[in-house]
Amino acid sequence: MTLDDIDTPAVLVDLDIAERNIAAYQAYCDEHGIALRPHIKTHKLPFLARQQVAAGARGITCQKLSEAEVMIAEGGIDDVLITYPILGPAKVARLRALAERVTLASVADSIAVIDGLDAGFEGATPLRVLVECDTGAERCGVTSPEKAVELARRIDAAPNLTFGGIMTYPPKRDTAGTQEKLSAIVTAMTDAGLPPETVSSGGSPDMWRAHEAPVATEYRVGTYVYNDRSLVEAGTCAIDDCALTVLVTVVSVPSADRAVIDAGSKVLTSDLLGLDGHGHVLGRPDLRIAGLSEEHGVLRADTIGLKVGDRLRIIPNHCCVVSNMMDEVQLHRSGTPLVPAPVVARGKVV
Amino acid sequence: MTLDDIDTPAVLVDLDIAERNIAAYQAYCDEHGIALRPHIKTHKLPFLARQQVAAGARGITCQKLSEAEVMIAEGGIDDVLITYPILGPAKVARLRALAERVTLASVADSIAVIDGLDAGFEGATPLRVLVECDTGAERCGVTSPEKAVELARRIDAAPNLTFGGIMTYPPKRDTAGTQEKLSAIVTAMTDAGLPPETVSSGGSPDMWRAHEAPVATEYRVGTYVYNDRSLVEAGTCAIDDCALTVLVTVVSVPSADRAVIDAGSKVLTSDLLGLDGHGHVLGRPDLRIAGLSEEHGVLRADTIGLKVGDRLRIIPNHCCVVSNMMDEVQLHRSGTPLVPAPVVARGKVV
Repeated sequence: MTLDDIDTPAVLVDLDIAERNIAAYQAYCDEHGIALRPHIKTHKLPFLARQQVAAGARGITCQKLSEAEVMIAEGGIDDVLITYPILGPAKVARLRALAERVTLASVADSIAVIDGLDAGFEGATPLRVLVECDTGAERCGVTSPEKAVELARRIDAAPNLTFGGIMTYPPKRDTAGTQEKLSAIVTAMTDAGLPPETVSSGGSPDMWRAHEAPVATEYRVGTYVYNDRSLVEAGTCAIDDCALTVLVTVVSVPSADRAVIDAGSKVLTSDLLGLDGHGHVLGRPDLRIAGLSEEHGVLRADTIGLKVGDRLRIIPNHCCVVSNMMDEVQLHRSGTPLVPAPVVARGKVV
Repeated sequence: MTLDDIDTPAVLVDLDIAERNIAAYQAYCDEHGIALRPHIKTHKLPFLARQQVAAGARGITCQKLSEAEVMIAEGGIDDVLITYPILGPAKVARLRALAERVTLASVADSIAVIDGLDAGFEGATPLRVLVECDTGAERCGVTSPEKAVELARRIDAAPNLTFGGIMTYPPKRDTAGTQEKLSAIVTAMTDAGLPPETVSSGGSPDMWRAHEAPVATEYRVGTYVYNDRSLVEAGTCAIDDCALTVLVTVVSVPSADRAVIDAGSKVLTSDLLGLDGHGHVLGRPDLRIAGLSEEHGVLRADTIGLKVGDRLRIIPNHCCVVSNMMDEVQLHRSGTPLVPAPVVARGKVV
């Protein structure tokens, strides 16, 4: 069996490349004394989470409880940071059930979330909670050191919680600014008698510059395991470092400058991440994936040079969201197919 | 139990509205003597496909074999048009297996696809094949009446196929042009002694103008069952006609002009369809869903006026792709919850 025997569209994952990526970034973190906590959103595969931990990662990162539940139950993972505000009695009860089984920490950027966690952990081993801080990305997170200290105090005073430190998802391409902002928060917390044990930062585009913000003790990174076109374009990795590709077939060549492939937004997704077109066609950088509908991808070039039945491999703009579209991915090693792997943490949104 | 008891994010489907939409468009098609063939990509739910047929639809439309397999096996559907070029022995064998069970037709826009279908149906009841024609949308389809006639002749001459007519996915907002182009193809085929039995057109934005292109005998429409923001903005439906909404919770209010909800691109998707922002917040048209990451949606307004824990309902830009993100949707009738329905044709890409 070869990749030619696999029906399309299919998502291929080259384990040789993925394992090399895991080892390379673990070595970087080890060299710089940074604890690595991979985000499993990229692969959603318990066995790859286990490999990341076996390679030296401190634990994993999940954003949703349902992801953590799968990784603990099927991946045997025993250290999880949930980088998402867990809110509401139903979710807090699930968080508590997980905390009874593994080393678990969560985050909060509001009094409402802190108070909900505290109420839900009454009678349990105290939950470790980090304060989520906005260092410029403008998503979640408190926006000043003063507010960060206020929440740290609230956590520290909560009978069923322990203050664990700081978590941020920093803006891209500003490690100096991240260092400055995190340092200010650390100083304010230390001055308040609450020095943060963990300072957790992350983000794939700046992964090789993590050491430029040394105030962070821990780094979270997801995409690095597969890599994608967005990271190639950002200079973070090379084409040959991309483990995930989408195998497609040309189903129509209506004109000399246009062809249609059997992967649309249901596989490649509409994520552009600021790029032109919807992916990079291996070996044919002249082809532009100009448009997607759900099941069609429209390729354009001055001379398309394709015929119906031709097969192509595409590096998607954003590999994490492609994983989430698929019930299974086809594992291989440098083109030799292994087994399909069910993407067991796919679609876990609650 | 009320919708307040449902954990978020969740996709809600109001069956009262969906049934009203099904009835209203069936009545329009009946009035104008147009055969309706709904595209099941929008709901991916066998029971809703059955309701569409029970209301008077001729059959259903699928783009992928795996969708058709589910709709036939679990929906009891007995008439399917596959509006996609089916290519390769593995897929053609699956098509043949379906054709042995139900009334089935497929499409082709190339000799390669026609010859593959003919080879795969040797010894079987001949497969009905329509010629896919491009009437301006520039996706699949032959681009001239001459090429359409050439393929019609090829199908007609193939021992294991019968010529079924024409299929097109027309460009938006040009029913006059579609009528003109389809008529030219019909004339050319009729002159060649191959008058098309079926002329199948479609598309939700122009669904209420289908009668303006009366050369089409059949109309395919998917989104009409749920409707979405793109169709509201196009004037095709009203807000109150939208059956699918996304129920979310505010998880963070970092500043007076920003809040974060627990649905990102893993629920709402990145589909913009030319619109500004990622959906319409019911009751709060001043809120802009300014950005999505996988699990976060960032809302912005001059005065955000939300607190952590508030729940909102969102009409997404594109409902079809939202269905595809979810393992299940929560059915309700005007706010009274029914059961969750597994989206059994979700993720069927092969």
